Amino acid sequence: MRKLIGVIGPSEPTEDAKEFAEELGKLIAKEGWVLLTGGKGGVMEYASKGAKEAGGLTVGILPESNKNFANRYVDIAITTGIGEARNIILVNSSDAVVSVTLSAGTLIEIATASKIGKTLLGYKVPEIPGVDLLRVSSPEEAIEILKKSLKE
Amino acid sequence: MRKLIGVIGPSEPTEDAKEFAEELGKLIAKEGWVLLTGGKGGVMEYASKGAKEAGGLTVGILPESNKNFANRYVDIAITTGIGEARNIILVNSSDAVVSVTLSAGTLIEIATASKIGKTLLGYKVPEIPGVDLLRVSSPEEAIEILKKSLKE
Amino acid sequence: MRKLIGVIGPSEPTEDAKEFAEELGKLIAKEGWVLLTGGKGGVMEYASKGAKEAGGLTVGILPESNKNFANRYVDIAITTGIGEARNIILVNSSDAVVSVTLSAGTLIEIATASKIGKTLLGYKVPEIPGVDLLRVSSPEEAIEILKKSLKE
Amino acid sequence: MRKLIGVIGPSEPTEDAKEFAEELGKLIAKEGWVLLTGGKGGVMEYASKGAKEAGGLTVGILPESNKNFANRYVDIAITTGIGEARNIILVNSSDAVVSVTLSAGTLIEIATASKIGKTLLGYKVPEIPGVDLLRVSSPEEAIEILKKSLKE
Repeated sequence: MRKLIGVIGPSEPTEDAKEFAEELGKLIAKEGWVLLTGGKGGVMEYASKGAKEAGGLTVGILPESNKNFANRYVDIAITTGIGEARNIILVNSSDAVVSVTLSAGTLIEIATASKIGKTLLGYKVPEIPGVDLLRVSSPEEAIEILKKSLKE
Repeated sequence: MRKLIGVIGPSEPTEDAKEFAEELGKLIAKEGWVLLTGGKGGVMEYASKGAKEAGGLTVGILPESNKNFANRYVDIAITTGIGEARNIILVNSSDAVVSVTLSAGTLIEIATASKIGKTLLGYKVPEIPGVDLLRVSSPEEAIEILKKSLKE
Repeated sequence: MRKLIGVIGPSEPTEDAKEFAEELGKLIAKEGWVLLTGGKGGVMEYASKGAKEAGGLTVGILPESNKNFANRYVDIAITTGIGEARNIILVNSSDAVVSVTLSAGTLIEIATASKIGKTLLGYKVPEIPGVDLLRVSSPEEAIEILKKSLKE
Repeated sequence: MRKLIGVIGPSEPTEDAKEFAEELGKLIAKEGWVLLTGGKGGVMEYASKGAKEAGGLTVGILPESNKNFANRYVDIAITTGIGEARNIILVNSSDAVVSVTLSAGTLIEIATASKIGKTLLGYKVPEIPGVDLLRVSSPEEAIEILKKSLKE
């Protein structure tokens, strides 16, 4: 079974978050892991772009029931049709989750990952009460932590 | 159509949170509003207890597909069978949401309420980045704010 | 805890189905049971109308996340926001389900009720392979069967 | 974006259904399509086995939130944690659905596919009222129909 790494973050990210997401996507693909995102724009799209450029496989878990809502770097569109509840499925399905900065939607996923005890990494994610996340400052650092976590 | 007030909070609350929840449930019932909770223990149970004691109606939106998981103060058990994703449904269905303190599961609901722009009140909820909630210090104050919000 | 009777059927029903649904809704309310429907038009609306006229309580489990999609006889709108998946929740939450004729959407609910072994009654529902349902020819007959079923 | 073919059927299939599912899985993989199943045993497992043997990619949309419930031929386990409601997601995500015989759970998926107008093929599926499905008598015939359908 393939390892699935969820990458979450805002659909309207900063330039810095875009770069981080794209590089992270690349490195995830190079490890042979599958990239899991919400399938939409911003961090989700940049991570998927990076993964595709490195020859990887990308899965998008979409709120809508129509594939046209997926970004163009999504290989496998899971068009759930269940709206925001798809955030829960994304987290449930990920072996580990990396949050690239924070947004309102991302917070649902972080809270879910925290609740169910999923390995959770964060880049430039502010302190959130009750949430333990492993802070990383580069995509490379994220990969090192993920490698160790997936071995366990 | 009846107004639905979602009350959320930990299943293992502090004594203070229990008291707040029970009193809040009572006052919600006295306004003629329906109490909506996750249907389980702790804050959910104390709020439902309060509402029942004041002659109100209580709805529980449960993760499980079996009614036996509901607390005994739930009148109408919506046994979703969809696990943690039921948190999203609870928030979607509420006209306004009151968080009585905070826990990991509660954070999913707060994040969802914040994302979809639902009126969100909080008692002893710490600062959460990106989340605007109206802080209240008593059940009575919560009711006053809810009254104004529901009129709009 | 209140007994919940799910009434399902087409949003564009025959005249006969409308009459059956309205009368069934009335009788459900008179028994003190809560009526559970999909909250939309047709059979759902007529059953809810009947229940309201008899002083009953009606719950609508809607696909949308907005209350404006509910018919005007719904007291408690559970606006799931999860689309067609709400059919599963409706069935999971019902103590018994009555199908008033058949439609494409209704078939999802009948199949779900059959799968999870929920008490399932049908009025003018054609033979469906693998599905056992108790055929009734009047709302009164449905109530008699429901009474026995709920006692068990 | 990859084409996703949903293959559905009983978890306790006949020998004939097992053979059909395995051969269908192989042919789906040879076309370069991704196989989508419920990720469990029976038809789902045999179709996934066939697809893997032909070098294909398999996705399982599971009711549970834990990967251990997936059969060993699933590459990408989407562990939804939403129970039977996952049937809706499977159908929503498929470009076309092939039902290999019929069971109670399968009927939920057939009903959903019929409701949302998804291309639906069936092998040894009895007549279901209101459901139009294209009957096929061999995996090869299914592939021919899918090819035409996916071009449109």
